[in-house]
Amino acid sequence: MTTTVKAYAAPSATEPLVPTTIERRDVGPHDVRIDIKYAGICHSDIHTARSEWGPTTYPIVVGHEIAGIVAEVGTDVTKYAVGDRVGVGCMVDSCGECEYCAAGEEQHCAKGNVGTYASVGKDGRPTQGGYSQSIVVTEGFVVRIPDGLELDVAAPLLCAGITTYSPLRHWQAGPGKKVAVVGLGGLGHVAVKLAHAMGADVTVLSQSLKKQEDGLRLGANAYYATSDPDTFTELASSFDLIINTVSASLDLDAYLSLLAVDGTMVNVGAPEKPLSLQVFSLIMKRRSFAGSTIGGIRETQEMLDFCVEHGIGSDIETIPAEKINEAYERVVNSDVRYRFVIDAATFA
Amino acid sequence: MTTTVKAYAAPSATEPLVPTTIERRDVGPHDVRIDIKYAGICHSDIHTARSEWGPTTYPIVVGHEIAGIVAEVGTDVTKYAVGDRVGVGCMVDSCGECEYCAAGEEQHCAKGNVGTYASVGKDGRPTQGGYSQSIVVTEGFVVRIPDGLELDVAAPLLCAGITTYSPLRHWQAGPGKKVAVVGLGGLGHVAVKLAHAMGADVTVLSQSLKKQEDGLRLGANAYYATSDPDTFTELASSFDLIINTVSASLDLDAYLSLLAVDGTMVNVGAPEKPLSLQVFSLIMKRRSFAGSTIGGIRETQEMLDFCVEHGIGSDIETIPAEKINEAYERVVNSDVRYRFVIDAATFA
Repeated sequence: MTTTVKAYAAPSATEPLVPTTIERRDVGPHDVRIDIKYAGICHSDIHTARSEWGPTTYPIVVGHEIAGIVAEVGTDVTKYAVGDRVGVGCMVDSCGECEYCAAGEEQHCAKGNVGTYASVGKDGRPTQGGYSQSIVVTEGFVVRIPDGLELDVAAPLLCAGITTYSPLRHWQAGPGKKVAVVGLGGLGHVAVKLAHAMGADVTVLSQSLKKQEDGLRLGANAYYATSDPDTFTELASSFDLIINTVSASLDLDAYLSLLAVDGTMVNVGAPEKPLSLQVFSLIMKRRSFAGSTIGGIRETQEMLDFCVEHGIGSDIETIPAEKINEAYERVVNSDVRYRFVIDAATFA
Repeated sequence: MTTTVKAYAAPSATEPLVPTTIERRDVGPHDVRIDIKYAGICHSDIHTARSEWGPTTYPIVVGHEIAGIVAEVGTDVTKYAVGDRVGVGCMVDSCGECEYCAAGEEQHCAKGNVGTYASVGKDGRPTQGGYSQSIVVTEGFVVRIPDGLELDVAAPLLCAGITTYSPLRHWQAGPGKKVAVVGLGGLGHVAVKLAHAMGADVTVLSQSLKKQEDGLRLGANAYYATSDPDTFTELASSFDLIINTVSASLDLDAYLSLLAVDGTMVNVGAPEKPLSLQVFSLIMKRRSFAGSTIGGIRETQEMLDFCVEHGIGSDIETIPAEKINEAYERVVNSDVRYRFVIDAATFA
């Protein structure tokens, strides 16, 4: 038994997204049906819609930055009630039994978690994402959006927020720590707000000084252009943590040279091509190059609670569904400050 | 004022090492003169003698795995007395004032430490290493070789020992941790002994199974050939820590795939060419790729104390000075189990 809902889907890797309908499963005992109010546009959506990260099965409805209202709950649901303000991020299920699931780190589920889209649910059906009117998700993968955090600015936090919050916490950004954020885009602008709120000294490293005013307003203490070679001399060996939100290939050795002793550079963006580095860049100051992906459900809730406490939301531009393809082009061209959010009422 | 001592030097990047004499400074108030008894041959010596890590100033006397007996002490020396059994590793001085020196991490001295050879001492003269009859070193860079640890098997610990001990401690090798050591050579064989003594579960990853018997005798729990692709399937996502002692370029993504969630691969060897990696190899399990170089003086002493407590010395083959060039060829061909040590009496 299913419910038909309106959505926008990519029919193939090369065609624009088009209006369509998809089927959502009926609400099971542990499920929550969410009326989607807003869905953020993440660059990953575009990579998947265009088969840029490997072949995608079409048609695909992407979107994993979902904010909405609970419309129906299953008989055994205890955490949520109809009318609750909730969100769904990049995962909708996991094995629930492995050591990582037990530890609340479902993003590292030993059997692989179920992605919000382009994955296969436990019912054997392909998952379809948030560019749609509603979604049915097991309650364990639903988080509460606290009062005081608007649904539209909350939506992007479900991916961009947790993707930057988790490494900032894991590598202990806070008072006395110098943190650099590479790239001031969808992820970067949230990273700056979060790191600042955590008490770290924050520097933005951006290609140019074009967004400098924004960066400082968002909470950065300093802003440097990476197109200026002096930047790398001036900031040599100065950061405890660098969060790299840029997917483009960059000169890794140059960025690693900015790390202090025991510093870590964490990639949250994934370039399509391999990166190269000189091992000496790591050896001389016991530096690390690391990667991080989203966070667990418990940590996602913690991040939302942190955001409302510190008045943090994503800076957004809200669009109707019919503008999705145009927005995609603008995301690819870094022409958005800083996240597109689709008004889900326009799927109707 | 100086003292002339016999030594072996490389006259150029392409000639064999030859007998020579060098000048050692007179013992200053804080200096210790050490009669060298044994000097280990480290692959770094060869890289430097042959200008493989950038241009070297010739003639050069290499050697930074030095064990000997104190022959003379300066007027203000308090730590050592004539007759003491001591060692000198890769550093002979540092600024003594920066935050890293203050923390006992002289290897990270903000002004750069003074290398035992191929560096410039505070007196402005080029430093010359351990392939010689004696050396004069400020007492702060001399460590005590505890009774019960023979000088010959202790010598290689001054570089190979501390280079592996430091990252094993930093990344917390111990009970419950799965540690892999890549390469069973001069560094690798000590790493296996140390990690085993720390209580970790130790696996050797070597090109072939040729040295398997040795590896298990040294303390490894398991031994795998990396030439067998099944190794990478069988051991996928299983290690908390990988210590890579191999300087040759290797398939980094394959090795990173062996790390569990939050695992770290640490390079202590430095390939001449850049390495390439897919960032996804790090992102999916929050893995890190790191580097580490030697350790501070305090930690070097701690390592020697740990070694005598656990009955750990280097496995060595002792040679006279006249065999150094032959030994170099054998080191390059990995034909030594596991470290050459020069009997310094043969410099006479």
